[in-house]
Amino acid sequence: MGLELMNGPTSPFGRTSKVVALELGIDVDERVIDVYSADFLDKWNPLRLIPTLIVDGEQAIYDSRTICAYFDAISANPTIFPSGDWAHETRVALAIGVMEAGLQRRMEIIRKKDEPRQDVIEKLEIRIMRSLKHMEGLAGAITAGPLRMDQIASACALEYTDYRFSNTWRPDCPELAAWLADFSQRPAMMESRPSE
Amino acid sequence: MGLELMNGPTSPFGRTSKVVALELGIDVDERVIDVYSADFLDKWNPLRLIPTLIVDGEQAIYDSRTICAYFDAISANPTIFPSGDWAHETRVALAIGVMEAGLQRRMEIIRKKDEPRQDVIEKLEIRIMRSLKHMEGLAGAITAGPLRMDQIASACALEYTDYRFSNTWRPDCPELAAWLADFSQRPAMMESRPSE
Repeated sequence: MGLELMNGPTSPFGRTSKVVALELGIDVDERVIDVYSADFLDKWNPLRLIPTLIVDGEQAIYDSRTICAYFDAISANPTIFPSGDWAHETRVALAIGVMEAGLQRRMEIIRKKDEPRQDVIEKLEIRIMRSLKHMEGLAGAITAGPLRMDQIASACALEYTDYRFSNTWRPDCPELAAWLADFSQRPAMMESRPSE
Repeated sequence: MGLELMNGPTSPFGRTSKVVALELGIDVDERVIDVYSADFLDKWNPLRLIPTLIVDGEQAIYDSRTICAYFDAISANPTIFPSGDWAHETRVALAIGVMEAGLQRRMEIIRKKDEPRQDVIEKLEIRIMRSLKHMEGLAGAITAGPLRMDQIASACALEYTDYRFSNTWRPDCPELAAWLADFSQRPAMMESRPSE
């Protein structure tokens, strides 16, 4: 079965999907594309968003959450989605929200056609920092137990915050900071880290 | 068990959650809030986004996808999430993407602090119309079979497009248009429709 992962060079959602594939031993052919000129993507995903997974050149699967769940389902490894654990699902949603806010902030900052909106940027920054403090309160749950989706999503959200925004969250989030220092050394995290 | 659904008056994601609760017979206490002044929401959901579900005054569950899956899990009704059906999950993600684009467009249009960005609005409108045409190609799958999540999400996405953007998609999407005319008459759709 051929799995082609349409990805961007720095997308936190694309990275999350890639980490899940690497951790679960899913053999994926990654194709890094420029989503802004990816008309060919429309027939697979008319939202023209990455990541988009193409299975056997026939079926598209998206968005990143669906792709991660699919990888989990076809993997022989233990599941990373504990069944019926709504606190876990909500921690995943929190991490996704942090990534989404970080991505929106980045899009605002690199806006070329007119001035970036400072009030929007500030609102997103407040949301991110507030969310990371909240995540610190959940650190005991996040860091405990075997590999799970909340760990991967949280680590990608924290590293994306470092990468595009700020690393100043650490004094407020000592447990997460200590955990991330270890988690970041996992081969899947290292192999998927943006190089630019 | 007390279920309190923090919702907005017109959020397509909040409506989707509400429709799922109504369809599955889940007894939910809906609380319509103004998310822009909802500081109290932070302790539950630091992203300060609706919908957020509060269970027994103790546990927060979000985002809308997680809430819908939770309602499905606690319902005695047949599941609306066919297991391992990745085409179905992707149709749900497509509908969510249409709602997301519609919401972003709306936010851009009602922007007060400076001029709405016409290029952003146009890009979102193209994305929505392209996605609805694609959805029409999936209409056979969407409209067949018993009640499922893709039907609820697609109907809410189509009605939100009508409500905030345009109803001109119908000539390009005759199957969806005919199906929606029926689906819209379901009590859960009627009871959850924005009144303003």
